[in-house]
Amino acid sequence: MAATGTEAKDLENHHNDCFIQLPNPNIATMKEDVLYHFNLSTSTHDFPAMFGDVKFVCVGGSPSRMSAFIRYVAAELGLDHPGKEYPNICVGTDRYVMYKVGPVLSVSHGMGIPSIGIMLHELIKMLYHARCTNITIIRIGTSGGIGLEPGSVVITQQAVNECFKPQVEQIVLGQRVFRSTNLDAQLVKELMQCSSDLNEFPTVVGNTMCTLDFYEGQGRLDGAICSYTEKDKQAYLQAAHAAGVRNIEMESSLFATMCSACGLKAAVVCVTLLDRLQGDQIDTPHDVLVEYQQRPQRLVVHFIKKSLGKA
Amino acid sequence: MAATGTEAKDLENHHNDCFIQLPNPNIATMKEDVLYHFNLSTSTHDFPAMFGDVKFVCVGGSPSRMSAFIRYVAAELGLDHPGKEYPNICVGTDRYVMYKVGPVLSVSHGMGIPSIGIMLHELIKMLYHARCTNITIIRIGTSGGIGLEPGSVVITQQAVNECFKPQVEQIVLGQRVFRSTNLDAQLVKELMQCSSDLNEFPTVVGNTMCTLDFYEGQGRLDGAICSYTEKDKQAYLQAAHAAGVRNIEMESSLFATMCSACGLKAAVVCVTLLDRLQGDQIDTPHDVLVEYQQRPQRLVVHFIKKSLGKA
Repeated sequence: MAATGTEAKDLENHHNDCFIQLPNPNIATMKEDVLYHFNLSTSTHDFPAMFGDVKFVCVGGSPSRMSAFIRYVAAELGLDHPGKEYPNICVGTDRYVMYKVGPVLSVSHGMGIPSIGIMLHELIKMLYHARCTNITIIRIGTSGGIGLEPGSVVITQQAVNECFKPQVEQIVLGQRVFRSTNLDAQLVKELMQCSSDLNEFPTVVGNTMCTLDFYEGQGRLDGAICSYTEKDKQAYLQAAHAAGVRNIEMESSLFATMCSACGLKAAVVCVTLLDRLQGDQIDTPHDVLVEYQQRPQRLVVHFIKKSLGKA
Repeated sequence: MAATGTEAKDLENHHNDCFIQLPNPNIATMKEDVLYHFNLSTSTHDFPAMFGDVKFVCVGGSPSRMSAFIRYVAAELGLDHPGKEYPNICVGTDRYVMYKVGPVLSVSHGMGIPSIGIMLHELIKMLYHARCTNITIIRIGTSGGIGLEPGSVVITQQAVNECFKPQVEQIVLGQRVFRSTNLDAQLVKELMQCSSDLNEFPTVVGNTMCTLDFYEGQGRLDGAICSYTEKDKQAYLQAAHAAGVRNIEMESSLFATMCSACGLKAAVVCVTLLDRLQGDQIDTPHDVLVEYQQRPQRLVVHFIKKSLGKA
C-alpha cells in the first residue's frame, strides 16, 4: 500500500533524524543494561520518558561546575522559577553527576581519558536506549593555553595526541588501535559565530592537545617527577604551537573519537587558565578563575538559545 | 666536634628515617608551590604542622568511600568521639577529597591513570613539603576478578599492563617512556598475614592488570563500542589468568611506579565485584556491593592497628 502524503512526510522526517549509532550489536539484544557508574538501569528507569527529548548534552570535568551550569541554562532558557530544584539524576553514586532541564543534559566526567571514557560509554548507551535523535554534545572545560592571553577560549579544530597527530591510541584486547579524532567542522563555525555575537572574551579556533598526564605529559617543571629542563619544555611547547596547538587538556581526543563513532555531532570548547609559555602553576586568584570557567558556558548557552530560536 | 652519644643516636635514627625522595630538583627551589587540584598551597597552609605526623596514606577512587573510611579508621584507632567531625581538607575544590585522623590520611583519586596521576603528583609533593618520614601508602579499591568468587580480595604482587608486563607506558615531551611497576614485597606478605589474622573473606596474592578503559580495554562486550566476540574476550581473559592476573582495575600501574620513584612503600588491595569469566555487568545488589567494598578497608585498618601495636 502506498503511503499517504502525510505518512510519506513523516517517513521522510524520520529518515532525516539522526539516531545514535552503537557500533556494538550486543546492546540491542540485552534484556537489561545496567549503567553501573550512573547507578541507572533500563529495568529500573524509563529512559525514553526521562531522556527522550534531550537535544543538547554538555559535559565537563567538575561536578559542581556542571551543577552550576544547569541552573544557568535553566535561567537563560526561561525554564527556572523560584524554588525550582535540579536533582542529581545519578544520585546513589558519586562517580558522576547528571542534571537535566528541558532539552539540555549536563553531565560531569572527572579528569582524564579513562574517566571520560567510562562516562561516554554509559551516556551514549543511555541516549540510545532513550531513542534520542539529533543530539549535539559539547565538552565545556578548562585547559592550559599556548601563546594565548589567560581566559581566552579555544574552540577545537582537531584534537591531537602528544605528537600533534589527530588520533588517539587505545588498547583493545591487548592490541594497539589508532582511531581518528574527528569533530564537526560546521559546529566549530557556528560556535565561533556565537562568540562573535557575544563579543565578551577572546576566542580562537585551534588544535587541542590531549595528554594522559597533567605534569610530565604536558611538559610541566613542577610535578613530583621531572627529568627535563626548561629549555626542553619550551622547545616542546613551541613545536606544539607550530603544529597549530593552542591549548592542552586531558579528554578531547577520546571524546572526539567516541562521539564520532556513535554519530553524535560533537565540539570541544575550553577556556585557558594560564599561558604555558609563561609558567606551569595555576596561581591566578580564585574569583578570576571562576569567571574564566563561566566563559565556555556563556558561549555554549548562547549557541543553545540560538539553535532553539531564543537568541 | 664529635657528636655526643645522644646526638649520635639521633643522627643514626634520622639516618634510618625514610624521607620522600622527589626526582625533581625544581621543587626545593620554588618560593611557593600551589597544589591546584587540592586547593592547597605552601604559602597559605602550614604543611609540616598539618601533615608532619602522617604515616599511613590510604587512597581510593570514590570520595564518599574515602570519607566513610576515615570515620572507620577513627573508630578503630580509638580517636573518634560523639560529635567529632572530619572536615574535607580539600574544601574549595571538587576534584579530590582528603581527610585525616591521627597518623592516617585518606584521599580520593577518581577513576583512571590520569586522575590518580594528578593526585599523586600533588600528594607526594605535599608529603615532601611536610617533611614526612616512613610513609606507607595503600590503594584500597574495587576491581573485576578473573576466576575468583566475587567479594574476594586481591593483594597485588605485580601491577601489569594490558600485555601482562610489569610496566607502565608514559609519554613525556612526546616520547614514549616505559617505567617498571614495583611494589613492596614485604608489605604484600604483611597484608596477607593480616587477612589470615582476620579470616573474614577470601584473599589472594596475584597480579593486577591496569587498563586505560573499562569497556573495550577490559574485553567487555557491553560498552557502546565493541568489535570482538565472546570467544575473543574469553581467550584474552584466559591468557591474563595464565599470566597470573587475578583482577583488573585502572590505577595500579601508575600508582606503583610513582610511589616507587619517590621512595614510598606502596601496596594495592582491591576487592573483586564480579568474576569477569562469568559476565561483564555489575548487577549485584547494592547492599552486597557495599559490604564487598568494606573488605579492603577492614584488612588495611587491621594492618594499621597492628603496625601501631593496637591489634
